Amino acid sequence: MSVLVSGSIALDHVKTKKAAQENLLGGSASYAAIAASFFAPVGMVGVVGRDFPEEHLELFKQRRIDLEGVEFSEGETFRWTGEYMDDMNDRETLEVALNVLESWRPKVGESQKNSTRVNLLANSHPVNQHSVVDQVGDGPGFTIADTMDLWIQISRHELESLLHRIDLLVLNDSEAKLMMDTPNVVAAGTQLREMGPKFVIVKKGEHGAMLFGEDDFFACPAFPLQEVFDPTGAGDSFIGGFAGYLASLGKDSYDFADLAGAIARGTVLASFTCESFSTHALHDLDRAAFDERLDAFHRICRFS
Amino acid sequence: MSVLVSGSIALDHVKTKKAAQENLLGGSASYAAIAASFFAPVGMVGVVGRDFPEEHLELFKQRRIDLEGVEFSEGETFRWTGEYMDDMNDRETLEVALNVLESWRPKVGESQKNSTRVNLLANSHPVNQHSVVDQVGDGPGFTIADTMDLWIQISRHELESLLHRIDLLVLNDSEAKLMMDTPNVVAAGTQLREMGPKFVIVKKGEHGAMLFGEDDFFACPAFPLQEVFDPTGAGDSFIGGFAGYLASLGKDSYDFADLAGAIARGTVLASFTCESFSTHALHDLDRAAFDERLDAFHRICRFS
Repeated sequence: MSVLVSGSIALDHVKTKKAAQENLLGGSASYAAIAASFFAPVGMVGVVGRDFPEEHLELFKQRRIDLEGVEFSEGETFRWTGEYMDDMNDRETLEVALNVLESWRPKVGESQKNSTRVNLLANSHPVNQHSVVDQVGDGPGFTIADTMDLWIQISRHELESLLHRIDLLVLNDSEAKLMMDTPNVVAAGTQLREMGPKFVIVKKGEHGAMLFGEDDFFACPAFPLQEVFDPTGAGDSFIGGFAGYLASLGKDSYDFADLAGAIARGTVLASFTCESFSTHALHDLDRAAFDERLDAFHRICRFS
Repeated sequence: MSVLVSGSIALDHVKTKKAAQENLLGGSASYAAIAASFFAPVGMVGVVGRDFPEEHLELFKQRRIDLEGVEFSEGETFRWTGEYMDDMNDRETLEVALNVLESWRPKVGESQKNSTRVNLLANSHPVNQHSVVDQVGDGPGFTIADTMDLWIQISRHELESLLHRIDLLVLNDSEAKLMMDTPNVVAAGTQLREMGPKFVIVKKGEHGAMLFGEDDFFACPAFPLQEVFDPTGAGDSFIGGFAGYLASLGKDSYDFADLAGAIARGTVLASFTCESFSTHALHDLDRAAFDERLDAFHRICRFS
């Protein structure tokens, strides 16, 4: 049983104070799928254009990611250009070209529908997220939706109705506060959970993440990094790793402790993503290096 | 064996969106001493003026805080007036009157010198922090110094020389980054530790705290609060609780795990401080309520 990841596939141009690179593999679904594939079989739903480099497709295949739901379109691939300041929390989007993403509607592959245990709706327009749930069904398995400030601002109605169809909502702290119109992130997470999903994760970047359940709360720091090379896709890697780990448990349903454990795995994967451009650090990552950092993360968070 | 707390004693005027109150007990030493007294005997070193209310003195006495090192001066007590915005992380200092604090030099009581196990230099001018170390000695026990942006800016030389005389430096994340001129808080904490103290704690307010040791790192979130009533003194309560817990262990030296445990206790005490004006919530706090919240904090941070 596998994770189905739907969302954007992009070509990123990223500039930091130390380096710059063009045509990097990017997009919410790319990061999430590659992170999830560390733990479980992954199927992908998205769209690319005719300019999409063969090497990026090759990478998905190396990770044994099933591309039945990826549409190959005649237009150009979605492109994002961004620049990071000295403080890597400070990012400026210089250019966005939706291209083939603009008119895309997800088409889940038939075989993908049957094997989905965890349905990860990576950050994408809520209408597309609804469409994937329509096709896969919201009955079996565990459905996760990621979102962003743009959809809260321009597509709030669709986002709110989606909340009743998912098990878990994930978003940034600033987005949670924006959506609930409160400066208190704990209040925001609590209120979001009352709008439909059984669980809410609030991502706080370098400050870690929080998980809200009905009667439970979990929080952990980020994995400490002396230097952040490129944080693009860290949040997508986090939730991809989270989803992959859940799927790997081989259970019919997940309790709060499963989700807390999944947050730890997602946190560790996201820390690797921050250490290179694109998904590069995830490709080279072997199980021993991951386990070592997960052990370190346990030690970092332990007290008596 | 007890905690010696030196620093400021203030009368605070605090305004939030929900309430306002004048002549509240404030100051770094007041919060830290009352928090520390939850775990261990406390001696205090500071100065108050003739306007200092009897009820605040009574409170110190109720907590069995030894006031031998508190000077009763003819002038007026140090006063701070501040206002919190809707977002309680956003605070404006409206007025500061140093008054008797301006020319004060700490005088540690003779009996206090002999009973000190943990020497907490709560936030105060580095020259005064040096003076307390001169009187108590930096040999036995464990010496902690808290500081703030003002001293980094106007008294950096004295602050840097202090770092060689203490076991632990504690400061906010923005202050750590300011002092080390880096946007990365992990790098800042690591570099600060290399400047002298065996340990560094970086406080991150609602995002928790980090502890840097030679080969170890610990991080934990803050205790989640749906509503913050008044966060004034949360950092001082945190380090006061930290110091009191260490003293209560009755050990000659402290290892990294002791300090991590002390951070958890300080975090829990600070969360109570945020729930009322001044130190009010700490007065009413009984052991059962503290233990319950400490248990909850353990559950919140646990994963496997």
